[in-house]
Amino acid sequence: MTTIDLNCDLGEGFGAWTMGDDEALLAIVTSANIACGFHAGDPSIMRRLCDVAVENGAAIGAHVGYRDLVGFGRRRIEVSESDLTNDIVYQIGALDGFARMAGATVSYVKPHGALYNTIAVEPVYARALAEAVLRYNPDLHVVGLAGSSGLRDVGDAGVATVAEAFADRAYTADGHLVSRGTTGSVLHDVDAIAARCAEMARSGEIESIDGTKVHISAQTICVHGDTPGAVAIARRVRGTLVAEGITLKPFVGAGGAA
Amino acid sequence: MTTIDLNCDLGEGFGAWTMGDDEALLAIVTSANIACGFHAGDPSIMRRLCDVAVENGAAIGAHVGYRDLVGFGRRRIEVSESDLTNDIVYQIGALDGFARMAGATVSYVKPHGALYNTIAVEPVYARALAEAVLRYNPDLHVVGLAGSSGLRDVGDAGVATVAEAFADRAYTADGHLVSRGTTGSVLHDVDAIAARCAEMARSGEIESIDGTKVHISAQTICVHGDTPGAVAIARRVRGTLVAEGITLKPFVGAGGAA
Amino acid sequence: MTTIDLNCDLGEGFGAWTMGDDEALLAIVTSANIACGFHAGDPSIMRRLCDVAVENGAAIGAHVGYRDLVGFGRRRIEVSESDLTNDIVYQIGALDGFARMAGATVSYVKPHGALYNTIAVEPVYARALAEAVLRYNPDLHVVGLAGSSGLRDVGDAGVATVAEAFADRAYTADGHLVSRGTTGSVLHDVDAIAARCAEMARSGEIESIDGTKVHISAQTICVHGDTPGAVAIARRVRGTLVAEGITLKPFVGAGGAA
Amino acid sequence: MTTIDLNCDLGEGFGAWTMGDDEALLAIVTSANIACGFHAGDPSIMRRLCDVAVENGAAIGAHVGYRDLVGFGRRRIEVSESDLTNDIVYQIGALDGFARMAGATVSYVKPHGALYNTIAVEPVYARALAEAVLRYNPDLHVVGLAGSSGLRDVGDAGVATVAEAFADRAYTADGHLVSRGTTGSVLHDVDAIAARCAEMARSGEIESIDGTKVHISAQTICVHGDTPGAVAIARRVRGTLVAEGITLKPFVGAGGAA
Repeated sequence: MTTIDLNCDLGEGFGAWTMGDDEALLAIVTSANIACGFHAGDPSIMRRLCDVAVENGAAIGAHVGYRDLVGFGRRRIEVSESDLTNDIVYQIGALDGFARMAGATVSYVKPHGALYNTIAVEPVYARALAEAVLRYNPDLHVVGLAGSSGLRDVGDAGVATVAEAFADRAYTADGHLVSRGTTGSVLHDVDAIAARCAEMARSGEIESIDGTKVHISAQTICVHGDTPGAVAIARRVRGTLVAEGITLKPFVGAGGAA
Repeated sequence: MTTIDLNCDLGEGFGAWTMGDDEALLAIVTSANIACGFHAGDPSIMRRLCDVAVENGAAIGAHVGYRDLVGFGRRRIEVSESDLTNDIVYQIGALDGFARMAGATVSYVKPHGALYNTIAVEPVYARALAEAVLRYNPDLHVVGLAGSSGLRDVGDAGVATVAEAFADRAYTADGHLVSRGTTGSVLHDVDAIAARCAEMARSGEIESIDGTKVHISAQTICVHGDTPGAVAIARRVRGTLVAEGITLKPFVGAGGAA
Repeated sequence: MTTIDLNCDLGEGFGAWTMGDDEALLAIVTSANIACGFHAGDPSIMRRLCDVAVENGAAIGAHVGYRDLVGFGRRRIEVSESDLTNDIVYQIGALDGFARMAGATVSYVKPHGALYNTIAVEPVYARALAEAVLRYNPDLHVVGLAGSSGLRDVGDAGVATVAEAFADRAYTADGHLVSRGTTGSVLHDVDAIAARCAEMARSGEIESIDGTKVHISAQTICVHGDTPGAVAIARRVRGTLVAEGITLKPFVGAGGAA
Repeated sequence: MTTIDLNCDLGEGFGAWTMGDDEALLAIVTSANIACGFHAGDPSIMRRLCDVAVENGAAIGAHVGYRDLVGFGRRRIEVSESDLTNDIVYQIGALDGFARMAGATVSYVKPHGALYNTIAVEPVYARALAEAVLRYNPDLHVVGLAGSSGLRDVGDAGVATVAEAFADRAYTADGHLVSRGTTGSVLHDVDAIAARCAEMARSGEIESIDGTKVHISAQTICVHGDTPGAVAIARRVRGTLVAEGITLKPFVGAGGAA
């Protein structure tokens, strides 16, 4: 039986500001990356999303970021290794409180934005993340970029890792993401995106930007939540996967029971 | 055997800014009210203080406040009941992560500053705090103003409460704190402060500001950490209590095992 | 010749978060209340809006609020009188820099949200605002609630005041706003809102919620920017006023030349 | 007549937190780098320091930093060029309001911490700073690291620049600062520091870390305010300079009249 997990960045509003349609997306995805207040998210949003995630059977992940609301966590900050570990533990702990109130627990950690990119390539920050997880709760999984040295570093430190692919991003022939800004780096055709997700789930064989086949080994696929048409794309992805007999479920048991 | 708990507000620095001598005070008190990042405190401070609290056998309490760094939590904010519950859960959860890393857990909650005063007298906010504790972990204790209606409200909601007295504050004949600003409201004589703490621990009978006896029933005494001479006063209080055969220990088992 | 000013709260996004359609609204209104970073707004938004305001001939106003991003300035904070004065000066000064870069200056101040309501009724805060204006630049005008004691207090302190009415709010027979939450407090019919604005501009005679006539003496009318249909309503108001021969222009010369 | 300016970073508290003895230092230095709220400083501190600077005849400079209170502006943030320009304008404008209230104006800009170091070596950020100054007020001076390419870039853009040396830092034989962490990088002997400042003011010839002479051309010398003994060192520097007949005065006319 072929299975795959769909994850989405959620809870990225703050106070009166909203971002994306969290409730609609939580009816589609199986893993919820919930912002923890550093790059986005506030306590009342976190509580509501944990409740809805549990109602929908989605796993709860701590979407941890740099402490930078005005930059939405998209700007690299030269934080020290130990401060980064502590910033991550703070965010996981805060979210875990709301997960428990909802009858679940945080079951994985996914870094956000600039922190995601930094951890993918810089060993010192991958180590800071691994340290946070191992010290907070070594049963937590870490979601990161498929094929990245950073995700390998996290795994080498003893943390269970989950490789992630992107539904709407082009890949090079050697399996890297095509940089944003390059023509063709982001897919917009809904059918093409859905078909590619099915291929990722079944064989991992997809077409690279230069037309050759490339193997992307991913246990979870990220669908975006904050772009126009995001909900429609995510719904189509889910519909196609289900129609093709692929089972959608969290890579960990929902509610943290891996 | 007469026992009493000494608590102190700790971890109230932020980044490069410091406040009080946390390490010195943690060698004196038995319960550590650790700031959780809303009115003061940052992740690296929280981690260090949890480690030191555990080394010293002190219980760890979440010192929760309004989200107001520039006001140090001393200004009332007209927050909604549910937002306050969620703000409190967020802070407890964040601290609990560091407590666990140190091999302990948060064992109590004490509101800070303006929130302390508000909860003491306004039922809706006492309810918000009780709700946070009951939903997060009903085994947590709540520390509040001895004799206040708010602490009674929290207890009536089903939470274990702990009455607190202040080492250096004058009381009226009917058991209320004399308002700051009133002449004589704050005691400065170290010997008088220490002697009063011993009386509180033994009989609860102390002299009120008008010279009559008043009974203050307190299970924990707050010593201040951020005033000049704070460490010296706290050390004298401890020394006097020990010399008089009073046992100093947390009102809950250190590390949360009540 | 009958003239009136239309004002709108603008620039209330923050970083990646947006709020309302600022550019569309700036093509409609004649005075732009621009958020200054305390309740909303960031430097890049402030700069862009000052530029667009000047292009459109709109006057630039400092929309000053409590320092409370997560609460969007809608929660009262127990700030001291002198701190409030300083918080207001800080915000005006910051916006004035961008106004100058755009070839204009800040020409008025309007408090936002909870601060607007507080200043309307509490003399100490009206005084704090007046002090800020008199010390920063006594030529600035202050916009406040028509008929409020607070606006009168600001005027008595020597500041030029501008009375404001709300396009979509019901009034009592004695000229006060009907509280939100009361049935009928907010008008939703676009034609009725536009017709009422024309009456306000011409005679100040409008129908109160109980059907009697009430006189609202206002030099500026606030149209909302952050509700669904806000742009359509604002455009209709402008269209109706123009069709009825009423001249729309800032109560102060655009760019601060009063 | 030999003249020199002494500058110091001031106003770096925040709310209840203090940093250094601002009042004592303002009786010593001739130029006050006042924090503007992004890395430190709040409106009430800014107002007080502007008042005291004017009373003491010190020039007022905007000490602008990254928006990073918890990192105290010491961590590089990957901000875009235009956002940095706008962040700087915001900070200058905010301080200028308080300077005007005190009867002066901001007369110069000095970047703080990580921003200081970044601007010294990266042309894009030097350009962002120059753009801010030219657009806000082209009469403002910029203080930067003597001999740095960044200060040259700012000058090439048309801004008046002021080269800064450090009273207590060792220099290499080719005129660069010896990196902190290297043995001997920071001078601690008060007499040596004071003597070196006198040499800088008179001839610019000082002894480098390897014993050779090096020429440091500086119009202002930075004395630190936040280290133990900072006030004593600054006072000794001033005393020595005065005793040697060197005139201490701002590099710009105090209050901005250059």
